[in-house]
Amino acid sequence: MRSLRTAAISIAICAIVFGSSRAAPIEVKAIGHLYVGGHKVELRNAPPRKRIQAPDLPTQQIDPNGDFVAGATYVGYVRLAHAAHKFPILMVPGGGLSGVSFETTPDGRPGWQWFFLRAGYSTFIADLDQTGRSPWSRYPEIDPQEPAFRSSAFLWEVFRIGPPGSYNAAGGPAAFPGTQFPVGAFTTFAQSAAPRFPISTAREDGDLDALVKSVCPCILLTHSASGRAGLAAAQRWPVAIKAVISIEPSGAPADIPGGGSLPPHLFVWGDFLSPSETDKSWQEEVDAAERYSALLKGHATRADWISLPALGLRGNSHLVMLDKNSDAIAGLIAQWLRAQGL
Amino acid sequence: MRSLRTAAISIAICAIVFGSSRAAPIEVKAIGHLYVGGHKVELRNAPPRKRIQAPDLPTQQIDPNGDFVAGATYVGYVRLAHAAHKFPILMVPGGGLSGVSFETTPDGRPGWQWFFLRAGYSTFIADLDQTGRSPWSRYPEIDPQEPAFRSSAFLWEVFRIGPPGSYNAAGGPAAFPGTQFPVGAFTTFAQSAAPRFPISTAREDGDLDALVKSVCPCILLTHSASGRAGLAAAQRWPVAIKAVISIEPSGAPADIPGGGSLPPHLFVWGDFLSPSETDKSWQEEVDAAERYSALLKGHATRADWISLPALGLRGNSHLVMLDKNSDAIAGLIAQWLRAQGL
Repeated sequence: MRSLRTAAISIAICAIVFGSSRAAPIEVKAIGHLYVGGHKVELRNAPPRKRIQAPDLPTQQIDPNGDFVAGATYVGYVRLAHAAHKFPILMVPGGGLSGVSFETTPDGRPGWQWFFLRAGYSTFIADLDQTGRSPWSRYPEIDPQEPAFRSSAFLWEVFRIGPPGSYNAAGGPAAFPGTQFPVGAFTTFAQSAAPRFPISTAREDGDLDALVKSVCPCILLTHSASGRAGLAAAQRWPVAIKAVISIEPSGAPADIPGGGSLPPHLFVWGDFLSPSETDKSWQEEVDAAERYSALLKGHATRADWISLPALGLRGNSHLVMLDKNSDAIAGLIAQWLRAQGL
Repeated sequence: MRSLRTAAISIAICAIVFGSSRAAPIEVKAIGHLYVGGHKVELRNAPPRKRIQAPDLPTQQIDPNGDFVAGATYVGYVRLAHAAHKFPILMVPGGGLSGVSFETTPDGRPGWQWFFLRAGYSTFIADLDQTGRSPWSRYPEIDPQEPAFRSSAFLWEVFRIGPPGSYNAAGGPAAFPGTQFPVGAFTTFAQSAAPRFPISTAREDGDLDALVKSVCPCILLTHSASGRAGLAAAQRWPVAIKAVISIEPSGAPADIPGGGSLPPHLFVWGDFLSPSETDKSWQEEVDAAERYSALLKGHATRADWISLPALGLRGNSHLVMLDKNSDAIAGLIAQWLRAQGL
């Protein structure tokens, strides 16, 4: 543990030094996007209905019918002219967060996309199903229901910027002492938060399959709600997915039915996860990931676990990639990738 | 006119030659985004209501209240390490189209973003209010009503891939003869189409103001529904906006109340605009832009008008930047910018 902590401190120093050369340009050979997955929907016999609108507006009738394309996933790419590493990184954001969570941080620093480009990896960044540039569909006729609109209190507390109940504290939102989240830029973060549609695990798996088929071989990096689907995808694509980096996954598969070893896995967890600090659902997520990590080891698969506080990196929220020490944590991930030969 | 036509043909040839070196890398010093505009919404006394969902799902009650941030605009940027031109290009998409319409074309060619980066311009690309990575808000409590969900028939016919009624032709969708739209990739285009919220002109103007304050001085390039707001913004920001390129604007201001000349304007129009080919609303858009172009000239302002068919470039849809000859048209725009010293 001492050597890991020393490594963490060196990486943090490295990141600061590295930061000073962050402005050095990179050579890019392509910037663009793909749409993957999606399916055609032919609405033919949906009854005309009233447009959903504020009660003081004059009633409008709409005919919902027609052909539509639903459920496609946007994935933007930046391909380096001279990548230092063979495989690109595919980043998949958490629920209600689009790919912007890997671009610039809310307080305006370059995010993980830029870090990994500078480190020599081409990047692919997805917008989660029905989020960001992955369009959503008419509800209730195509999507069965309206999404969850997350209030600022939800974002603040569930993403562990502050403890339960802290957003509405007298005197304004109260953060955890020593938080790494750039609280002064919280409103900018809230600007990026998208409505979240409930999506079945089958659909999540299908989205990952479409991404892997189009983008991989690759290194898969997931966050939060995309965690379970990413772990499951590595079981189905043990060759195309070269490694899985799972940032605070919410949920994990219950078993590994197939034989053979899987690509190496890295789990990364922030701070304020003890039962006295946060909602108990977080401890359940950690437990599920721990059980899955043990399962992986039982399948002759490398599974590494980084608890940032255990390495002396304290104060991280659930939004590790947006926290003030985001470059230090990206540095730890890059070090781990190099150790896997990736 | 003959010289313009010759120029158009040379540009088209240039674009083909240029295309062969499109894979040459560019040096980039920053990739990221900003969120601009937006406002805090405090919902306090909205009554609890049933979740909007399919009738076969069990009823759920929701409490809509809380703090939200609504109406922010996402703008992604790519800054060149060595821009050949002093001012970047700010591209604002049309209604129901996110910034992806300036990235890759549906048939997988590099889009206008890549063309102008290669031509030495840094780029800023916005997602229109409530579209793409510019999040939308709960309706009807914050947004007053549900958006328009555009069917494939709407996209096909209103964007002039085929004439009115042609999507449901016997034997499948029928395109205009000689269309430049990559019809084989129509489904990929439809994957990118976003629901369109009705937005007031005051809100459109506010969005443009927020963009100009954050991004300009710049060259402003708009498409379709962002056209009117872009033309109006140049009246309010005649110094920060160095030129306006208005691709098939839908609507134009009725007058120019201020004194003094405005930055140079370029209007670009595709094919199939005659009353026998398309809905009469298109002719009304052309007329409005012609009237505004005349107004500009009356204000000692340069206003150039490119009708692509008049230059011998036939077959363009409303989605000029996605059509098969998109590079040739970008080449005409680049030539015009150079003529303005930009």
